[in-house]
Amino acid sequence: MTAREREIVDRWNACAYYRLIGMRAVSASEGTAVLELRVGEEHHQAYGSAHGGVLAGLIDAAMGLAILGAAPDGEGCATIEMKLNYTAPAVRGTLTATGRILHEGRRMVVASAEARDDAGVLVSAGQGTFQRFRPGAG
Amino acid sequence: MTAREREIVDRWNACAYYRLIGMRAVSASEGTAVLELRVGEEHHQAYGSAHGGVLAGLIDAAMGLAILGAAPDGEGCATIEMKLNYTAPAVRGTLTATGRILHEGRRMVVASAEARDDAGVLVSAGQGTFQRFRPGAG
Amino acid sequence: MTAREREIVDRWNACAYYRLIGMRAVSASEGTAVLELRVGEEHHQAYGSAHGGVLAGLIDAAMGLAILGAAPDGEGCATIEMKLNYTAPAVRGTLTATGRILHEGRRMVVASAEARDDAGVLVSAGQGTFQRFRPGAG
Amino acid sequence: MTAREREIVDRWNACAYYRLIGMRAVSASEGTAVLELRVGEEHHQAYGSAHGGVLAGLIDAAMGLAILGAAPDGEGCATIEMKLNYTAPAVRGTLTATGRILHEGRRMVVASAEARDDAGVLVSAGQGTFQRFRPGAG
Repeated sequence: MTAREREIVDRWNACAYYRLIGMRAVSASEGTAVLELRVGEEHHQAYGSAHGGVLAGLIDAAMGLAILGAAPDGEGCATIEMKLNYTAPAVRGTLTATGRILHEGRRMVVASAEARDDAGVLVSAGQGTFQRFRPGAG
Repeated sequence: MTAREREIVDRWNACAYYRLIGMRAVSASEGTAVLELRVGEEHHQAYGSAHGGVLAGLIDAAMGLAILGAAPDGEGCATIEMKLNYTAPAVRGTLTATGRILHEGRRMVVASAEARDDAGVLVSAGQGTFQRFRPGAG
Repeated sequence: MTAREREIVDRWNACAYYRLIGMRAVSASEGTAVLELRVGEEHHQAYGSAHGGVLAGLIDAAMGLAILGAAPDGEGCATIEMKLNYTAPAVRGTLTATGRILHEGRRMVVASAEARDDAGVLVSAGQGTFQRFRPGAG
Repeated sequence: MTAREREIVDRWNACAYYRLIGMRAVSASEGTAVLELRVGEEHHQAYGSAHGGVLAGLIDAAMGLAILGAAPDGEGCATIEMKLNYTAPAVRGTLTATGRILHEGRRMVVASAEARDDAGVLVSAGQGTFQRFRPGAG
């Protein structure tokens, strides 16, 4: 990672939500990004596996970080919408999410992401639309 | 709510994820459900509003609870997939999410949900697909 | 409908795709729109019901027309993305699709739509994101 | 392609919808599939590019054919739902859609697809959920 990519990763890891949920950005480089989340009982829903919100946050972040890592300096991105499938329950262990850019438009970027467990099993896959913006701009 | 609906709501509120994120099921009745979440700084991403994962968890739960409230005794439901739009940032205050059933199939149920802030502004709207199952069944 | 709404409906019905597929815009007014499509064997896929593309076109059009009917004069809208569920096969008869606006932003609009058959059975429900634009603008 | 894959491709190309819309399945092998569609004025919406339904049908078919090519003999698949982004207008020329399997479950399969124009520009990308079934089974 470049110093700028490192700065982005550090800034995201400093977010309150990342600490609350135990999510960690690992890298953002050339239109891809990697995050990790160690699933524990604190993430569980009524059936004993990670709640959909946990995985959705991970997929959202993987896509957003892939986009931000490739964005011009000072540009931010906001999730307009996303869709994700839940393909296997995540009960414990470390999930690794990988995001990548599918299409970069002038105002919008489309990305996809997937999250896999320790055994390499796909637990979630998603696709989303993001809006470029400059913080402070109208 | 009937005693059974109250039991479902209580069971969901006892989930670890609900306590972690501060989400609360309010009601589940006749194919609709209501949940609340008080947004605080602990939910924020880098731009100072609730992370997409927080809202996704709320939308997912509102759809799932609407379905479960209407399901036969002993039946569970798992989110197969969902799609959600983020229509306004949620910075603070209480979000209210409402889920409703769009279509009940034999094995699958389609639902939608929306979340609004204290001022009634739509912050997220989604649609998802759920699978019926009987816990313990193959 | 006002004269302007009638003009929009007529313009859409004049589209080549509408004639190819046999789709017809019925009305567009106050953020909702109605379209019809008579399903015939020409729409069938290998299993003898309407292909997913037929229903997707109908859902897309119902959302877009709801938005356009409520838009300022001279504004157009383009589908950024959409998600749709297929809830029942459409074999024959007339499908009626209804679109409505969920959220109007400055640049983007979120809408939902559903299509029902002659018996009122839901055959598809979707949600999508649209971008406002002025034709000819950069 | 094996004889069985060729048989599937031929069967899909014989569908009425394929002839109506001018779509052609090219190949289905090892969890991927390729289709082509030559965009003409007959596909256009009011703004002079292919209607969303045309691209949705292509994306749906690319995912479904990827799944069917990899399925056991005699098994069919039905689209439960899909989400797709429209990333560039398709005005004319030949679109090539490629589908691939993301996850194979016992009852459901998740797939993604993308469509590109003659110049290799991404015009649409989607992700969908499909249900396995045996024609004639309950």
